Amino acid sequence: MGASTSQGYEIARKSREIVRELIGNDIAGLGEEEAAIVERIVHSTADPEYARITRFSSDFVQAALGSLRESGSILTDIEMVRAGITGDRAVSFIRRPEVAEIAAGREITRAAAAVEYAAEKGFRGLIVIGNAPTALMKVIELVEDGSLDADAVIGVPVGFVGAAESKEALRRTELPHMITEGPKGGTPVAVAAANALIALSEGRKV
Amino acid sequence: MGASTSQGYEIARKSREIVRELIGNDIAGLGEEEAAIVERIVHSTADPEYARITRFSSDFVQAALGSLRESGSILTDIEMVRAGITGDRAVSFIRRPEVAEIAAGREITRAAAAVEYAAEKGFRGLIVIGNAPTALMKVIELVEDGSLDADAVIGVPVGFVGAAESKEALRRTELPHMITEGPKGGTPVAVAAANALIALSEGRKV
Repeated sequence: MGASTSQGYEIARKSREIVRELIGNDIAGLGEEEAAIVERIVHSTADPEYARITRFSSDFVQAALGSLRESGSILTDIEMVRAGITGDRAVSFIRRPEVAEIAAGREITRAAAAVEYAAEKGFRGLIVIGNAPTALMKVIELVEDGSLDADAVIGVPVGFVGAAESKEALRRTELPHMITEGPKGGTPVAVAAANALIALSEGRKV
Repeated sequence: MGASTSQGYEIARKSREIVRELIGNDIAGLGEEEAAIVERIVHSTADPEYARITRFSSDFVQAALGSLRESGSILTDIEMVRAGITGDRAVSFIRRPEVAEIAAGREITRAAAAVEYAAEKGFRGLIVIGNAPTALMKVIELVEDGSLDADAVIGVPVGFVGAAESKEALRRTELPHMITEGPKGGTPVAVAAANALIALSEGRKV
């Protein structure tokens, strides 16, 4: 859980006990890896509602773990998500000058333009969208037209405008995915899910 | 609200309308700047509960704005919070090798050790603790013994172990502060509050 000192480990252990108490019933039907991901999300947000609104496609865990073990590349929508992901394998293009130009020229958000830029650069791997519904819609559009290669998508944009709709759109695709239903989601949810998967892919405790 | 394209502005505008509808009653008693901060937190988290659990000391807004206008320095507990703050004025020391040494040697968390390191380096400014209760407790300890100079503190650690207690401890101090009651809080809350204050300090719309 990111802890690297004995005090940190003790806090993580106690928290995990409390989380299991709070959400044990909600996650009883999930697979072991899915349950571990949800536990880490609730640990990170202190919000048990995530145990009721997090949804996985049945092929998500296997596809995401396979992607991490093979390519190891992770694309995030914004810098804040990138900064939270363990190690240095995650990339975000949102601050590149070329992305600002794409966004301004086509009147799309920088987050959506950054996904176009990643597709142009031939990105392939796990995609983690923690904030921008426009970025998630762009991922779906580019995967469907064959110009972006996503092994699996963590799609948890947050907000009252477009977030829920973008996640429902992802749910209707064939892409291996994890979403949170409704307006809630965001950076800590995206980061918790990605870091849980990284730990699982390396055979570490989540 | 971080938007920099016409599509982004339109999403932010609609979201702000929805947020005002949802939390208008809860924030009716707040000052104008406090209300703007809470609106941005709810916009960022899509969680209206923050309008009921966010608390300000009466001197917080003035102290935080004065700090930003004078020194401009911002200390964050972790990299993820730093990455979300507008511009490049925020610093985080948690990944420094010296901090790992302090943490290992004294058996404290790296987040707490990073606060000690900042105090040693003579940091002065606004302190933004979005995740680690141990970092917030360390801020309180070092301010009270006179070795750390905090103009104001955003104290919103998240989690089931120690977070609520650390925020109650901050509330009992004389420090100008903003907290969220209970276990909830985290990176998006800390970042939203800091960025709202930066916008206010520069006379921009929050």
